[in-house]
Amino acid sequence: MANEFSVVGKKTPRIDAFERVTGQAQYTGDIELPNMLYARVLRSPHPHAKIVSVDTSKAEKLPGVKAVIHCLNTQVPWTSGGATHRRYIFNNPVRYVGDAVAAVAATDRYIAEDALGLVEVKYEKIPHVLDAKEALKPDAPKIAPNGNLSVGTGNFSAPITEEWGDLEKGFKEADRIFEDTYISKHVNNAQMERRVSVAKWEGGKLTVWASTQGVSNARTDIAKDLELPLSKVRVVCKYMGAGFGNKNQAQDYDLMTAVLARATGQPVKLEFTREDDFIGMHGRWSSEQHYKIGVKKDGTITAVDLDAVTNMGAYRKQSGNLSGTDFYDIPNFKKVVKPVHTNTVVAANYRAPAYPQSVFGFASFLDQIAYELGVNPYDMFMRNRARLYHHKIPFTSNAMEECIVEGAKRIGWNEKWHKAGASSGAKKHGIGMALGGYPFRPGLGAATIRVNPDGTAHVLVGVTDIGTGAKSTMAIIAAEALGIPLNQIQLTNGDTDVTPFCIGESGSRNTSFTGTAVIAAAEDVRKQIFNVAAPQLKAKAEELDLKEANVFVKSDPSQKLPLSKALSRIGSEIIGRATTNPTFKDVEGKSFAAHFAEVEVDTWTGYVKITRYVAAHDSGTILNRLTAESQVMGGVVQGIGMALTEELLIDRPTAIPINPNYRDAKVPTHLEVPEVEVIFIEPYDPYGPFGGKVVGEPPITPAVATVANAIFNATGKRFKELPITPDKILRAAQV
Amino acid sequence: MANEFSVVGKKTPRIDAFERVTGQAQYTGDIELPNMLYARVLRSPHPHAKIVSVDTSKAEKLPGVKAVIHCLNTQVPWTSGGATHRRYIFNNPVRYVGDAVAAVAATDRYIAEDALGLVEVKYEKIPHVLDAKEALKPDAPKIAPNGNLSVGTGNFSAPITEEWGDLEKGFKEADRIFEDTYISKHVNNAQMERRVSVAKWEGGKLTVWASTQGVSNARTDIAKDLELPLSKVRVVCKYMGAGFGNKNQAQDYDLMTAVLARATGQPVKLEFTREDDFIGMHGRWSSEQHYKIGVKKDGTITAVDLDAVTNMGAYRKQSGNLSGTDFYDIPNFKKVVKPVHTNTVVAANYRAPAYPQSVFGFASFLDQIAYELGVNPYDMFMRNRARLYHHKIPFTSNAMEECIVEGAKRIGWNEKWHKAGASSGAKKHGIGMALGGYPFRPGLGAATIRVNPDGTAHVLVGVTDIGTGAKSTMAIIAAEALGIPLNQIQLTNGDTDVTPFCIGESGSRNTSFTGTAVIAAAEDVRKQIFNVAAPQLKAKAEELDLKEANVFVKSDPSQKLPLSKALSRIGSEIIGRATTNPTFKDVEGKSFAAHFAEVEVDTWTGYVKITRYVAAHDSGTILNRLTAESQVMGGVVQGIGMALTEELLIDRPTAIPINPNYRDAKVPTHLEVPEVEVIFIEPYDPYGPFGGKVVGEPPITPAVATVANAIFNATGKRFKELPITPDKILRAAQV
Repeated sequence: MANEFSVVGKKTPRIDAFERVTGQAQYTGDIELPNMLYARVLRSPHPHAKIVSVDTSKAEKLPGVKAVIHCLNTQVPWTSGGATHRRYIFNNPVRYVGDAVAAVAATDRYIAEDALGLVEVKYEKIPHVLDAKEALKPDAPKIAPNGNLSVGTGNFSAPITEEWGDLEKGFKEADRIFEDTYISKHVNNAQMERRVSVAKWEGGKLTVWASTQGVSNARTDIAKDLELPLSKVRVVCKYMGAGFGNKNQAQDYDLMTAVLARATGQPVKLEFTREDDFIGMHGRWSSEQHYKIGVKKDGTITAVDLDAVTNMGAYRKQSGNLSGTDFYDIPNFKKVVKPVHTNTVVAANYRAPAYPQSVFGFASFLDQIAYELGVNPYDMFMRNRARLYHHKIPFTSNAMEECIVEGAKRIGWNEKWHKAGASSGAKKHGIGMALGGYPFRPGLGAATIRVNPDGTAHVLVGVTDIGTGAKSTMAIIAAEALGIPLNQIQLTNGDTDVTPFCIGESGSRNTSFTGTAVIAAAEDVRKQIFNVAAPQLKAKAEELDLKEANVFVKSDPSQKLPLSKALSRIGSEIIGRATTNPTFKDVEGKSFAAHFAEVEVDTWTGYVKITRYVAAHDSGTILNRLTAESQVMGGVVQGIGMALTEELLIDRPTAIPINPNYRDAKVPTHLEVPEVEVIFIEPYDPYGPFGGKVVGEPPITPAVATVANAIFNATGKRFKELPITPDKILRAAQV
Repeated sequence: MANEFSVVGKKTPRIDAFERVTGQAQYTGDIELPNMLYARVLRSPHPHAKIVSVDTSKAEKLPGVKAVIHCLNTQVPWTSGGATHRRYIFNNPVRYVGDAVAAVAATDRYIAEDALGLVEVKYEKIPHVLDAKEALKPDAPKIAPNGNLSVGTGNFSAPITEEWGDLEKGFKEADRIFEDTYISKHVNNAQMERRVSVAKWEGGKLTVWASTQGVSNARTDIAKDLELPLSKVRVVCKYMGAGFGNKNQAQDYDLMTAVLARATGQPVKLEFTREDDFIGMHGRWSSEQHYKIGVKKDGTITAVDLDAVTNMGAYRKQSGNLSGTDFYDIPNFKKVVKPVHTNTVVAANYRAPAYPQSVFGFASFLDQIAYELGVNPYDMFMRNRARLYHHKIPFTSNAMEECIVEGAKRIGWNEKWHKAGASSGAKKHGIGMALGGYPFRPGLGAATIRVNPDGTAHVLVGVTDIGTGAKSTMAIIAAEALGIPLNQIQLTNGDTDVTPFCIGESGSRNTSFTGTAVIAAAEDVRKQIFNVAAPQLKAKAEELDLKEANVFVKSDPSQKLPLSKALSRIGSEIIGRATTNPTFKDVEGKSFAAHFAEVEVDTWTGYVKITRYVAAHDSGTILNRLTAESQVMGGVVQGIGMALTEELLIDRPTAIPINPNYRDAKVPTHLEVPEVEVIFIEPYDPYGPFGGKVVGEPPITPAVATVANAIFNATGKRFKELPITPDKILRAAQV
């Protein structure tokens, strides 16, 4: 199938590569407007406190200060995402160290920062709780009005429960039953671009230049919170420096910027510092996962019972679920996950939100069970891989088996695997694997395409391109669907005034949702082109095709006409448009992955070096091999960081985060990460655009467990709590 | 008919009024880009000279100078509009004082200006000619390769000839035959915003922020001259400060800016000084019109023979035609107009290019003939008004008669008209009238409309809104056609990357061409909305209507659904699109006007005061009464300037223009112009959007003649050469 494509499937450099590498790309932080003010946010030093008074008089006297807003003079709801209780841009009481207390707009950044120090806030401290299980105790300080079990609104229920089959029967059928607990920590998304927002009012119309993963969703949220019609809010994001899930929707800083701009009558830019960025937004929810697993002697799973808590921090924004069991065929299953509020930094979406921490727990435990049963982990994973969604619904396509086979072959599993801990010497070598993936779904997308009289084309889509290369993907899909060379396609993105609705780049949905609409818009264009060209080619419109900018008769391709010639006759532009919203019926979609790592563990220093990494992925047809490979590499790197080094540390007595910055959070650098060998298995998925599924989120899902399992294979020590830092390895080595 | 409209026909403030009056509107001159250079143009001091050498070494040594381009190192064609001979951005020989010789880009404006003085050009002078009739003599200096009769390419033939009926027969049928010559002068468009262009290259893609009347045409021209595909050229113009016909297409300064930006690798801004603006672009072609007119005793025209020359200056860009006879029913007609090259500033389009100078000549002469015949001018004009186009083809609508009747009634013609010169005293009072109008045509337009889930809408159109209020007109048309209130409509304009093709605001075509497409795009949206709403209203889609953001059953309007509710069910955006290109068959279109002025002529000072002015217009349905009235007022003001004060004066020995600036060109100010009383007669034209025809150009067409005829009525002196300055009046008064 892939061979039939003209544009799809190649290694295509990003269409905006030139602008990006030459520094011409205008990110939100580069926006400078005449008469613009600069804003900064004052954050709570207390984990839980009532604000009694805010005295802004000294701050307002500082020359250059134009406005100070805070919870006692400004009550603007911030409803983005879900919520357990109504959240405002400034809340009272404050519920974690870092909760926003006030924002200042001034004529320059330094005055704004100085002014923060002049805002006098009187707090009345309230007892606080940091630990999720502690927070569930009856006498724990109450953070949310309804209690600390985060009973969400909208899609976010609590506890999150899921059940199928007959758990009791499953455990009865088991030869052995294992129970254990795995713990993951809060890690920050740590994307390169700090949050920044620029807002400007023109009459009743608000424009926000946001650093957002989705301009349409950001617009919807801002319009809702500020009570504006959609047409009066414009959200623009042309380039952005990643978000990994924590730049979805509109955030409090977007709203603060808009409110300050309205208050001052001047454009306002609010930039987060890196510390703001680590504590003012959110990271991945930590978890404590207790598993009870029944297996046959050969490792075949008969039942899984998962009971877990996830720490959502002070406010609920997203699900708090754990979904790492999804890649396995489990006949009898029960899951209870309790998202819990604590007086800590908020936890919400970070690339494959419910997966890597959960895959870490479950795949580590399966690896451990394999060890206990004397089964090769390869067989354990192969045997239990998912064939049906939730043991019931067929997948639209599924090449997990090939991923396992080809990945194992590439890394040389058979030659390299040894019994755990059998490696000798101070530097111990080991190999590990795990399975992952991510749901693939169809949904709402929109696109318009304009074909110029010279046969070149303009594609308008709402994508923001958070780093995934989404712009290029959309242009590739358009080129393929139109039959016009890629270099003849101009793409405009990320501007709600001019680009159609886009779901936003979360949930790896963009290629599927918007890509499908691009194909439909191209069809709309092609139909019109064929109507124009038919008389010129003395054929019926339905007999025509268009490839490489030539319109031709399908049955006789020598009967052809350059597109520019076909259109020059009418001298006009052809406009195509589509809003598409396909659904699945009796099928489920998923991308699959099997990852393999080799590690060298230095038992003298505790340092883990990943010497080789193979990532085999089934994402259906790969639309752009270059950006898809980059996605896999990036996901693996983040998984490695989560496995080995990253954790937001909180000083327990004060509840103050002590490492909210790149260096201290120990986000991996080029020095710490290996080359990632990427293998794509490409079943043509009938539901995806040109057979493609999802690429963005799958790569991070198995990476943490893969590294952990390789460390186990090297050392014979099972680490059940992340991150697997040198001190933990040294302690284990001493046992 | 007009009563049925919800939005159309009211006095609607401009949708961008807030941005304009608060200074937030970003005109091209306001564009500032990082690392931007500033450019200036060196112009020829000679009317005709060969450039032998250009030494840029001193200029290039000036710190801050980044590039110097000129005719000997840069040969880029400038083919915009028509041409008699290939024109470049720098030409050799130079052909008029002001012809561009070189352009400099430097780090600031002052360095660029200083550098101009350091460019050393060696000229070899060539004999020159300034007068059009002189230029046609065999021994005149040859300006164009094919001779000085400007034999145009494309639509521009030379001489321009038109003929119908039987001229000889017509003159035979005449009771009397009159012959005379009328002369008009070169006047500058004198729009407020000077020309400015900003260009930036990103990789192979060029963006030009232009001050243009048409972004699509500008893009087409730039792409052609720089040999780029259309998708690689983006032209943006969000706000512009008028052009009146001399900012059509792409101009040499746009190309110079693009070339300098490419040469330097930096963005470049080129701003014209006011002097550049007066001599570097173009004004209205001057003319010498010789008429022979046959009439019956009662004034009925039997034949018109017009033999004229128009002075096009050094290069041909537009037609050079004279069309003022179009508003009359002439059974036998012949016209020969010879556009001629001279070594003067270029003449091309200025609001109703072929009309006001020509109406001045013809309507002055008709007024004179009426006087000679003893016929009241009212009867003369009424009797000879056009009933058929070129005495043959019916008009789509024609309310010229009502314009004459209602205008005359308003000004009190019957009471005020007296025999010419019968006014006594030093301050003489008089009244005059003339007929005008402008062609109305259908043609190529495009639009897209997106309706948000909350029922608000985005309209995308390519209009630049040169001051006419075109953005507002398009939004009004969209609101009316959609059935959505105007304040729920957001409009994006003037950006070839995102807005559909637009003919550009020339020829008063925009309301008709683009407006028709907006209606069609709205229909496309409505169809989709009705499909979505039909099941909710338990009706068929074709039974539904949409007004005031409510979808309802036509036969039972109580069965209704708010649009936002209808769409919220599907949660998606509806996109409509249209490219329309209607044509006339066996009809011609025209807007009509009859103007009336009262003047007071001070025969001691020569000063003419216009004491009252009534302008009666048939432009079909008026879509926005506020902007339409402004259009009429503006056109009248320009006509008054042309009648009384304006003329680009050229020093004959040196050929240097001596008054190329606002003050010396004597463009009217508020002190010189009267209130203009505007009357709209509104036949519903079946071919126009909501019955509308054209408004932009008609108002200037009769204004010059109206003032001239009023002066004749006051003084009894016929002025046959424009402008009718105090010195001419004083000289005539002494006779």
